[in-house]
Amino acid sequence: MGIEEKQDDSRWFTERADEAGMGLQLRIRGKLHEEQSDFQFLEIYETESFGHLMVIDGFVMLTERDNFVYHEMMTHPVLFTHARPRQVAIIGGGDCGSLREVLRHDTVDSVTQVDIDERVTRLSEQYFPELCESNNDPRARLLFDDGIEWMRQAPDASLDVIIVDSTDPVGPGEGLFNRAFYTQCYRALADGGILIQQSESPLLHLDLIQSMREAMSNGGFDQLHTLQFPQPTYPSGWWSATMARKGDQGLEQFRRGDAAKRRFPTRYYSAEVHAGALAMPPFFCQAMAR
Amino acid sequence: MGIEEKQDDSRWFTERADEAGMGLQLRIRGKLHEEQSDFQFLEIYETESFGHLMVIDGFVMLTERDNFVYHEMMTHPVLFTHARPRQVAIIGGGDCGSLREVLRHDTVDSVTQVDIDERVTRLSEQYFPELCESNNDPRARLLFDDGIEWMRQAPDASLDVIIVDSTDPVGPGEGLFNRAFYTQCYRALADGGILIQQSESPLLHLDLIQSMREAMSNGGFDQLHTLQFPQPTYPSGWWSATMARKGDQGLEQFRRGDAAKRRFPTRYYSAEVHAGALAMPPFFCQAMAR
Repeated sequence: MGIEEKQDDSRWFTERADEAGMGLQLRIRGKLHEEQSDFQFLEIYETESFGHLMVIDGFVMLTERDNFVYHEMMTHPVLFTHARPRQVAIIGGGDCGSLREVLRHDTVDSVTQVDIDERVTRLSEQYFPELCESNNDPRARLLFDDGIEWMRQAPDASLDVIIVDSTDPVGPGEGLFNRAFYTQCYRALADGGILIQQSESPLLHLDLIQSMREAMSNGGFDQLHTLQFPQPTYPSGWWSATMARKGDQGLEQFRRGDAAKRRFPTRYYSAEVHAGALAMPPFFCQAMAR
Repeated sequence: MGIEEKQDDSRWFTERADEAGMGLQLRIRGKLHEEQSDFQFLEIYETESFGHLMVIDGFVMLTERDNFVYHEMMTHPVLFTHARPRQVAIIGGGDCGSLREVLRHDTVDSVTQVDIDERVTRLSEQYFPELCESNNDPRARLLFDDGIEWMRQAPDASLDVIIVDSTDPVGPGEGLFNRAFYTQCYRALADGGILIQQSESPLLHLDLIQSMREAMSNGGFDQLHTLQFPQPTYPSGWWSATMARKGDQGLEQFRRGDAAKRRFPTRYYSAEVHAGALAMPPFFCQAMAR
């Protein structure tokens, strides 16, 4: 503890959010793998207390211990908000954790996952096998391709739910946070369809969330709602996802009865947690109303 | 980014939760003050992005930027759960941030704050003056004394709400997490009275929360409810507080109308956020039911 010169030199992985003036450390037993894929630099560590850790271009993507919060909150709220989600697309999501959660919903007929980097999925199969346990579900189709281009070619009104489970808006993820992409998503969604996208930290990234929401509106979306959840290994430990809907139905109502009676296991998600996550704090609502 | 040897040597404050295998870093402009008080080692830093930072015995106590979440959630939920809170005690809380929030409630006739270390309050007056802006309220009484002993001498049924805003259960805070202390709190509360205490991270400290709840029950408390909120500069960024009630009324119902119509500013708290914070995730509920 204290400033750096006082510390021991044990091995810690550090991710610094320099612009936020904060950093996260995880104690490491060793590095299990590293490679430069065609798109990004991928690392796998074994941590002391968080199990396996995947790092992309220096940023924590997921750990075994806490990814359940993120994956459950990127999937179950949007799927229980849609009246009957059948056709689902996941853009990004190469670790397959969101895919697994989507496939727990028996309304879902088909999920197409489009991640540009096949190596993320191959490493996840090796180091996070529990996230990949549904990859062979006959309803799942895994494509390794450019999600932006895939969305451009998706037929009109062919999707019920789009989950954008991407890296931050730098590098390969950049084109997933702008009006051009959202316009295509809007077109590809059927009426009542919903997009959900991870939208960074409510504390650190208010400007990003605001401009993302603006781009969603400009892309045609009629309803927006941001929800919050903890994510201990992302900067600030506090994360958000933003839902955007094609059509006039709001995003506060969901199939609460179905959520309460769900027949699959969850560790973070419940109907009550879903309702709670929709309650954004006053400082956030004020910033979004600016 | 990457493991430690790759990093630059800029000045960062680091708090390592060694047992949790995780650490938090804040970029520092400089150290403004340090002293060994009669009880603990106190440091004040100026950070790059979180304003002033107070550190006690190496642990982050608060920063200017994110203390609002903690202080609002340690006070408004419990005060809006009680039917008519008049007599309030704060044990610990020397930075006076909880005191300020309590005094926003016009039902409150008197607040006695008992922190063992006067130096915490003096440093807060100097470096966190906004938290101390209500210290001269005629309803407030600041004592610098042993909170455990003070509670032992408190008259029976003399308090409506007790807020235990303490350091972690090591050092001076240790005696605030056991049955003997809770027995005295129970005795000092009037019927329907509520204790709230910070109860660490739902991710990292499940065992602590469980044993704390058990000690509260053994101390006589009839109803328990833990609530959750983000706290970016505490380990894991995810924190909790546990309410314990003397009497049969539950802790899920609160004066929602009064909370919604509150005439004071809040940044994190709202009636909806309060309801949401009560929804604990399934993994937590299962662990508590063990």
